[in-house]
Amino acid sequence: MSTPWELRFANRTQRMKSSFIRELLKVTNQPDVISFGGGFPAAELFPIEQMKEACNKVLTENGQKALQYTTTEGYDPLRQWIADDMNTKGLGITKDNILITNGSQQALDFVGRIFINNGDRILTESPTYLGALQAWNAYGPVFVTADTDENGLVTDTLEDIIKQNIKFMYVLPNFHNPLGVTMTLERRKRLIELASQYGVPLIEDDPYGKLLFEGEHITPIAVLDANYHNSQGGQFGGNVIFTSTFSKILAPGLRIGWVIGPAEVIKRMVQAKQGADLQCSTFDQYVAYEMASSEWLPEHIETIIRVYKERRDAMIQAFEDYMPEGTTWTTPRGGLFLWLRLPESCNSLDLFPKAVEEKVAYVPGTPFYPNDGPTNTMRLNFSAADPEKITEGVRRLSVMIKKAITEK
Amino acid sequence: MSTPWELRFANRTQRMKSSFIRELLKVTNQPDVISFGGGFPAAELFPIEQMKEACNKVLTENGQKALQYTTTEGYDPLRQWIADDMNTKGLGITKDNILITNGSQQALDFVGRIFINNGDRILTESPTYLGALQAWNAYGPVFVTADTDENGLVTDTLEDIIKQNIKFMYVLPNFHNPLGVTMTLERRKRLIELASQYGVPLIEDDPYGKLLFEGEHITPIAVLDANYHNSQGGQFGGNVIFTSTFSKILAPGLRIGWVIGPAEVIKRMVQAKQGADLQCSTFDQYVAYEMASSEWLPEHIETIIRVYKERRDAMIQAFEDYMPEGTTWTTPRGGLFLWLRLPESCNSLDLFPKAVEEKVAYVPGTPFYPNDGPTNTMRLNFSAADPEKITEGVRRLSVMIKKAITEK
Repeated sequence: MSTPWELRFANRTQRMKSSFIRELLKVTNQPDVISFGGGFPAAELFPIEQMKEACNKVLTENGQKALQYTTTEGYDPLRQWIADDMNTKGLGITKDNILITNGSQQALDFVGRIFINNGDRILTESPTYLGALQAWNAYGPVFVTADTDENGLVTDTLEDIIKQNIKFMYVLPNFHNPLGVTMTLERRKRLIELASQYGVPLIEDDPYGKLLFEGEHITPIAVLDANYHNSQGGQFGGNVIFTSTFSKILAPGLRIGWVIGPAEVIKRMVQAKQGADLQCSTFDQYVAYEMASSEWLPEHIETIIRVYKERRDAMIQAFEDYMPEGTTWTTPRGGLFLWLRLPESCNSLDLFPKAVEEKVAYVPGTPFYPNDGPTNTMRLNFSAADPEKITEGVRRLSVMIKKAITEK
Repeated sequence: MSTPWELRFANRTQRMKSSFIRELLKVTNQPDVISFGGGFPAAELFPIEQMKEACNKVLTENGQKALQYTTTEGYDPLRQWIADDMNTKGLGITKDNILITNGSQQALDFVGRIFINNGDRILTESPTYLGALQAWNAYGPVFVTADTDENGLVTDTLEDIIKQNIKFMYVLPNFHNPLGVTMTLERRKRLIELASQYGVPLIEDDPYGKLLFEGEHITPIAVLDANYHNSQGGQFGGNVIFTSTFSKILAPGLRIGWVIGPAEVIKRMVQAKQGADLQCSTFDQYVAYEMASSEWLPEHIETIIRVYKERRDAMIQAFEDYMPEGTTWTTPRGGLFLWLRLPESCNSLDLFPKAVEEKVAYVPGTPFYPNDGPTNTMRLNFSAADPEKITEGVRRLSVMIKKAITEK
């Protein structure tokens, strides 16, 4: 049935695409599929009992407020908790630098909404987070890309690119989605220098920062910016918009993320949010605050880290045991994902239907490239399946890949 | 402190305005202010105990699923509940016609996102819902307005307006925000005829439909459209996008609304939602479903209706007791708001700071007019304060208004 609505879509809808990953969810959520596809945290680690207690406490002590409308900016104690947490790292912000968003995805959408004019040039890594591309495509930007290697965004060749009339840069420094790599301190510092020199601001997307498996936490780019502009530090630098989320340390189903930026930017984002959806769930914000400020959270994060590290190790061991020669992978120091590069003759998009037949799922690498990219890559999630399933899933993949190589 | 970000706002931000009402919340939320300003449901009626039970049940039976990511479309049982509820009225939809949104505000934003090109002509009532104007302004439409009187949108003179290259119409038929009026069945039928004749589709915004104080429910426009296109009814008509919410019958803090439309439109809105925020809170959707499908909900709605009717009556009685001659008002058959028209010499925007001094708040009428409108009107909410406070608040307003008249 055709309706008058279908003749009336706005021009921007031609630039909107369905998310490969979100569509994938529908195929791969059958219980017998071993899925490395989603960005799912391990559900068996969700703090369900603590959530029960938090819900009860919130409803008993603040039921009327927690179910009522609240300000668009978000629940103040939650904003203050986030400010305090970032300030322990030396950021120098107040709650007025913070807007609570529906996951960090909404923060990315608001970046597009308040900054991107049709034709604006945005510098991204290549590959980069698919959700950012999807949020921004509707606003019609041109993506200018820079390389990212094992040590994060490559800064050696960045100066030539940053000169090319760039509106802003977008970087995922910790346990990059999809690559799993981490940007070194040296490169972060160089990035801040270049950003200041050419007056190009940047978005730091850090959803997994707390999930570090080994080594030291590296200073956030936003903090380096604060230090660069204030020799004593302790004052927000203002060149970096920072976004993160409770999705990976509490639960993604709550949809509570946040964005940190100059107060003037937050004001504009508040206007955007008023039009977009008024505010985030008051109840989920109260509950998230209850859990975030609880004493058990650090221990809970330790548990997540221990389990995800085991799973990463299981996946890498399985690669070593099963994958054919010519297959390479990244070894993430944290987070949820790694990146697999197959022999060049293998096309991961062509292999996908076969994988689904074999009851194993991944995300082909191609959609993560803003413009063009190789076709022999894939993103694998290691947080959602236990080591045994991971081993079996990698084995199934390896059989399929070996067959594809032989058939060429 | 000025940052590079502030030089980089997109052109559309010049069309974005702060919501008068959302900003107002910050001023009027002090406990000693009697506020007729917000659209707050009565917090003392929130089903807090039932919410506790629902949270416990959801977390005990479905904890892992309720805290995990889910599909963008929304939680299927909740979509099915909404479809069933609408189908009892004769709409003829399936869950594929439904997207769960963060309140109905997000549905309005998605309408803007997928339909409005810069310069498109949108037909609205005048005055109309401020949140729709705010959601759509960023997309650059031209608002073409039609009159609304005590019997809703005036259809007698609509034909001349509908011919003027209108992209879509936007109507609030039940207990109109801000007017409080209800559109008659006759006018609804005429509207559907005109919409079909000129091929102009329409948005039916119905957040308060279930809160009817007296008389009979009038058939939704979407259902009249289904009947118009199918002589037997029972099949979705496709010309009407319908939106509603649980905010006024459960709790606005949950941010669970929905939009109903042709499957092709819902598909596009799902794309928009993928980019905007991936999905609504899984947990809030599970909890909302638990409460919506419970046996106590009809009784709970009866309680809300009884209390709001008392409050409406108290407000109207106070008008009769206190307001000076030349003041008129609407008498809503349901919902949360009514509309007050002061003597022409009174400017409700000028009076506002004085009202705040007297610890009483309202929303001046001017912002509800898409283009121009009279300055002597105000929207008053009667759901949030008890009858005693309502009487006292109206008394304070009346003193102020009488003084303003005398001073002229």
